[in-house]
Amino acid sequence: MTGALRAVALGGGHGLHATLTALRRLTTDVTAVVTVADDGGSSGRLRRELGLLPPGDLRQALAALAVAETGESLWAEVFQHRFGGNGALTGHAVGNLVLAGLFEVLGDPVLALDEARRLLGVSGRVLPMSPEPLEIEAEVSGLDDDGSLRRIRGQVAVASTPGRVERITLRTPQRPGGEPSACDEAVQAVLDAEVVFLGPGSWFTSVLPHLLVPGLHDALLRTRATKIVVLNLVPQPGETAGFSPERHLDVLFQHAPGLRVDAVIADRDSVPAPARLRDAAAGLGAKALLADVADPGREGVHDPDALAGCVREALGLSGTEGRKG
Amino acid sequence: MTGALRAVALGGGHGLHATLTALRRLTTDVTAVVTVADDGGSSGRLRRELGLLPPGDLRQALAALAVAETGESLWAEVFQHRFGGNGALTGHAVGNLVLAGLFEVLGDPVLALDEARRLLGVSGRVLPMSPEPLEIEAEVSGLDDDGSLRRIRGQVAVASTPGRVERITLRTPQRPGGEPSACDEAVQAVLDAEVVFLGPGSWFTSVLPHLLVPGLHDALLRTRATKIVVLNLVPQPGETAGFSPERHLDVLFQHAPGLRVDAVIADRDSVPAPARLRDAAAGLGAKALLADVADPGREGVHDPDALAGCVREALGLSGTEGRKG
Repeated sequence: MTGALRAVALGGGHGLHATLTALRRLTTDVTAVVTVADDGGSSGRLRRELGLLPPGDLRQALAALAVAETGESLWAEVFQHRFGGNGALTGHAVGNLVLAGLFEVLGDPVLALDEARRLLGVSGRVLPMSPEPLEIEAEVSGLDDDGSLRRIRGQVAVASTPGRVERITLRTPQRPGGEPSACDEAVQAVLDAEVVFLGPGSWFTSVLPHLLVPGLHDALLRTRATKIVVLNLVPQPGETAGFSPERHLDVLFQHAPGLRVDAVIADRDSVPAPARLRDAAAGLGAKALLADVADPGREGVHDPDALAGCVREALGLSGTEGRKG
Repeated sequence: MTGALRAVALGGGHGLHATLTALRRLTTDVTAVVTVADDGGSSGRLRRELGLLPPGDLRQALAALAVAETGESLWAEVFQHRFGGNGALTGHAVGNLVLAGLFEVLGDPVLALDEARRLLGVSGRVLPMSPEPLEIEAEVSGLDDDGSLRRIRGQVAVASTPGRVERITLRTPQRPGGEPSACDEAVQAVLDAEVVFLGPGSWFTSVLPHLLVPGLHDALLRTRATKIVVLNLVPQPGETAGFSPERHLDVLFQHAPGLRVDAVIADRDSVPAPARLRDAAAGLGAKALLADVADPGREGVHDPDALAGCVREALGLSGTEGRKG
């Protein structure tokens, strides 16, 4: 069954990279559903200039799958290569420009991403959570002395706020006042999945946004897949500075009432109060799995083999009891 | 023999497109040797910003081969696609950005171009005439009332000068005072070829530059290939405004003394004085072939089938006597 396990990972950025790399150790059938709310760096410039989906997180997911599947990959290296110098192209990742070209020529991000994965020789699929660029808006406390909430807009601003993010919503800048539309293929992938992952990653800007796309939220409630939340190893400076592991789960529940989860995977050393995490997980219907999933050699990075082992355990596949916390 | 005929086409831009499209009707073994002196548009911006070979003419040759070989080609379309809008990317062809990325990652334009042709599914080869960006300098008359010569630098300036271009030289901006180096693989392709084409194309800026790279010039003198010059259908505004067909040949001879040519192909309607052209061709050792090689539907564009037929005749393959002038 392992070879055919239908796995879907929701996220963005480095966190999604970790999940995809671990998942590829378990199955060949991996679909990434990727946030499209980035407004920073190369992605933000392309988005503003051309009105396209921000390609950066999509590119990262493609490259992660390419390396996980094929080891060395020239095109993954080219996709990740950034132009230097100090001109108009400085900082643009080549893959972002290729994806932008494919978006414009094919007129459909899903077709474009399928073409890009063929180029990279990737069997896994990368999908946007929405076919339209979205914008994150956050209610943030602690920015004013009087304790009032401020609204902060844009992924970069939210991710780096010195205040405390209380709640996020998604806006549709190309259709003001509209409801974020879900990518149909992403909805279907969640419905067809046997296991769905949320996290790790920047909690408010890469993990929670998926829950705020109504079509995806509904699919997460309806799917019969095993749902697994993977917690971060270290709080993100800015958006989740000082957040405990259980606070991450509280925030998840707050943004997706009704969502039930089967397992919460956390690194043993990143959980100061295991009992409290177990209680918070139980509130979502989940068991907490504490294990040594951090890469000892790289701060803040999951060890793909350890994470894969823990997922196997969560799914009741081959045991990794020795690692269990 | 047709399937294995080893053909090399020297040129750049739209002229090279015509030759490559026609050649693909004769053989699968086509190598384009492409000028790298462009300093305008997307290519010029990339060259100045990143210090790379200007990719535009190389991209055009790849796209021409892709379409000639495979008909519709998504990646050829993506390569040729230019970003719109009015920002930093406006006017950049996606393929130029991909080639720039490959140049930087692989560090070798020949490896990069071989990778690009794999992406485009092209069996023909595209090579730069030199591994380094070059600069055209022209001696131009008629800009001053006193009849003195002025030096004009850069492909765009030379191609659009209102004066009369008398002679060009090539400079090596990355090695001031150096001699233009030839691409080794291009030299070998010329030596191994059975037929080599010069032109059509912008005479001073796309056709003659190859003759000024000493390594390529030597190879053209040494190769046992049949050498065919294809003249333009209409004089280029700017660099060859008012040039007669025979003046094109005079200029060629002036820039490459010692070069012998086997055939000169010209469109019958573009030659006001056939006898004079025959004399000029004879001066290069060539016979002049006047035929109807213009596309009647597209001003200034060769008809690939007619051009292929004329080449077949020049090579003594199957006859197209009915078309002969």
